[in-house]
Amino acid sequence: MYWTKNFIPTLKETPQDAESVSHQLMLRAGLIRMLISGVYSYLPLGLKVLNNIELIIQQEMCVAGASQLLLPALQPLELWQATGRDKDIGEVMFRFTDRKGRKICLGPTHEEVITELVKNQVSSYRQLPVVLYQIQTKFRDEIRPRFGVIRACEFIMKDAYSFDKDEEGLKKNYQLMLDAYKRIFQRCGLDFLVIAADSGLMGGSVSHEFMVPALVGEDLVMECPKCKVNKGQNSEHEEDCPKCKVVFSRINAIEVGHIFQLGTKYSVSLGAKYLDSDGKEKPMVMGCYGIGVSRLLPAIIEQCHDSDGIIWPDEVAPYRAVILPLDVTNNEIMSRSLDIYQALKKENVEVLFDDRDERAGVKFKDADLIGIPLQIIIGKEGIKNNTVELKVRKTKERIVGAKEEIIRQLIKK
Amino acid sequence: MYWTKNFIPTLKETPQDAESVSHQLMLRAGLIRMLISGVYSYLPLGLKVLNNIELIIQQEMCVAGASQLLLPALQPLELWQATGRDKDIGEVMFRFTDRKGRKICLGPTHEEVITELVKNQVSSYRQLPVVLYQIQTKFRDEIRPRFGVIRACEFIMKDAYSFDKDEEGLKKNYQLMLDAYKRIFQRCGLDFLVIAADSGLMGGSVSHEFMVPALVGEDLVMECPKCKVNKGQNSEHEEDCPKCKVVFSRINAIEVGHIFQLGTKYSVSLGAKYLDSDGKEKPMVMGCYGIGVSRLLPAIIEQCHDSDGIIWPDEVAPYRAVILPLDVTNNEIMSRSLDIYQALKKENVEVLFDDRDERAGVKFKDADLIGIPLQIIIGKEGIKNNTVELKVRKTKERIVGAKEEIIRQLIKK
Repeated sequence: MYWTKNFIPTLKETPQDAESVSHQLMLRAGLIRMLISGVYSYLPLGLKVLNNIELIIQQEMCVAGASQLLLPALQPLELWQATGRDKDIGEVMFRFTDRKGRKICLGPTHEEVITELVKNQVSSYRQLPVVLYQIQTKFRDEIRPRFGVIRACEFIMKDAYSFDKDEEGLKKNYQLMLDAYKRIFQRCGLDFLVIAADSGLMGGSVSHEFMVPALVGEDLVMECPKCKVNKGQNSEHEEDCPKCKVVFSRINAIEVGHIFQLGTKYSVSLGAKYLDSDGKEKPMVMGCYGIGVSRLLPAIIEQCHDSDGIIWPDEVAPYRAVILPLDVTNNEIMSRSLDIYQALKKENVEVLFDDRDERAGVKFKDADLIGIPLQIIIGKEGIKNNTVELKVRKTKERIVGAKEEIIRQLIKK
Repeated sequence: MYWTKNFIPTLKETPQDAESVSHQLMLRAGLIRMLISGVYSYLPLGLKVLNNIELIIQQEMCVAGASQLLLPALQPLELWQATGRDKDIGEVMFRFTDRKGRKICLGPTHEEVITELVKNQVSSYRQLPVVLYQIQTKFRDEIRPRFGVIRACEFIMKDAYSFDKDEEGLKKNYQLMLDAYKRIFQRCGLDFLVIAADSGLMGGSVSHEFMVPALVGEDLVMECPKCKVNKGQNSEHEEDCPKCKVVFSRINAIEVGHIFQLGTKYSVSLGAKYLDSDGKEKPMVMGCYGIGVSRLLPAIIEQCHDSDGIIWPDEVAPYRAVILPLDVTNNEIMSRSLDIYQALKKENVEVLFDDRDERAGVKFKDADLIGIPLQIIIGKEGIKNNTVELKVRKTKERIVGAKEEIIRQLIKK
């Protein structure tokens, strides 16, 4: 992909209204732009990272045995009234009346809708378990949106739901999801903590949160400085580690995932029953499993950056390499750069070609800012010595070599 | 993928409230379910077709030189007031006030939002042209939703926008898009007509519609029965073909795409100007290009079905093949079926495995209903003769042969 065709509006200055490093870098690297407070457009580079994260999630959901579907954003308020959550959730849910007088809300989550769907299709124990997920846009009327897409009014979530005959089945699917979540966040390049948590508004008993330690995190995790055990902020208000008898430290963290053993709260209130092998009608036993997909972008950036910009982990990087011809008016430089571009495309390496007529300094700064793992630099000196330079964004390691050698190195790396 | 893991709730009976063949088949084949009138969930099989259509669109948009981004559904009403379209569009746009008192609407289209975005990032002729597109969920408060997802309140669109220095640039991008659209609809397996059309609410001069002839189509296309020339319904109210002097026939059609040379309507009203090489400030010259992505499902089904069910064209089919072991309690049948399943997966053939404990008749009927191009049938007779049967859904052609021969045929087909 050519830079000039790709709409990457980088910014030299740090935007003043962006409080967190990730918000600043997402704006400066041209990943997002604000439409109104709490509502953002994802520009091509940001969308590519989102798509990479979604692909990881899809692969791991498949391993966990979940099938993908797509539920609507428009939901009838009645369903929320049936579970009583219309009151619990309060003003955070957008509500309005349509032309026909129907009371509609914009889905902040989909427990009601999926339960209603499965209830109408599943009637026998032979059809269970059912495990479904979607990656979809959700809405929250946030009174105070913050930190760019970390707390936004419109955001992308992965939400999965399991329907089982009994607690035993639920526990099995819960464990499969917990394992899948660990793999997902590992592949996203994150350091994260898994915390036993409170179920809150969702209901149910057992629940785990996936927390990414970060200065701007709005959640608190307690950690014993000695044995490193972690606890959620609200867990029994302990002040000391029961084992080591030392005071817990507090760690700020961003919640990127939350999974719940819901039990029968939704299936009972919405009548999602099945006929068991013993001839009795029983409510389905449910679990739900959420990931804040769009929130993963800033969470990754909070952990993966330096003073020059973003350092994308390999699996989520928008491109594997960026090619920097340092003078686009020099035919030799451009011809060698295009050779490398074609060679890498042939090997199915995702590569960005900085074809802008800009000074070398601008290109270097922007390449570091947008954080693509590998930079291939072609300048006058390289042409003279018949070499090409490969720079690793993360380590700043530089390798100079013949064109073929650098291409080989890059495919290997 | 195993059928029992994939949530494909097929229906034997034709749903009474579904008026069109495509709506009936989408319900019966387990592609969609209604949540409320005009609002649908896409089940796994329906989502797979949607994803295939989206991939075709992404590939052809790339050829046309467009970059993908993602714009928000929540839009400030002010932007619509600035172009005057808040009045033009009337009640079809969902509107509400959020907690902070902001007047919000749910985007039925994105000319205003994209113009505002590009205006803030582009200032010089050197940055033009810019061609961007998204595949995104849109909303319309339809007073009378019809035919399932053909006219729905929540639907998926591909909308592209071009920004050029002048009319010449616009015409070039318009032609690139027109060509891309033809390739997209061809790859979707559609017979379609390209009609010079009225620009209506969008503004601008030149515009073309892409029409799929279908009995339930709500648009009318005029066609000369002799020379086959086509015209839109509103084109000057002609009643005879001017060349052949015979009365036009009327063809019902579904509009699946519409492209517009917008000119400067939006850039003038929203102030999207650039500095030209002559030092003068000029408004950008815009085009916009829409495809009704979710509407393509029923449009394809209207053209591609028989009395037994859907016949998916190859490129959009949810799976390439479905394997039907006719008795899942028979070890020989299951073992041979699984061999074939593994062999095809190894060749990266997308394949569905009907592992349901159902009678052969049910499996045959469901396989025809869901319309996967190739069926591989393994029964007792095959085990006896050491053969496998391949059935082509469209032609009903049957080929009986050794397992290896059938796999070879299938990969080739």
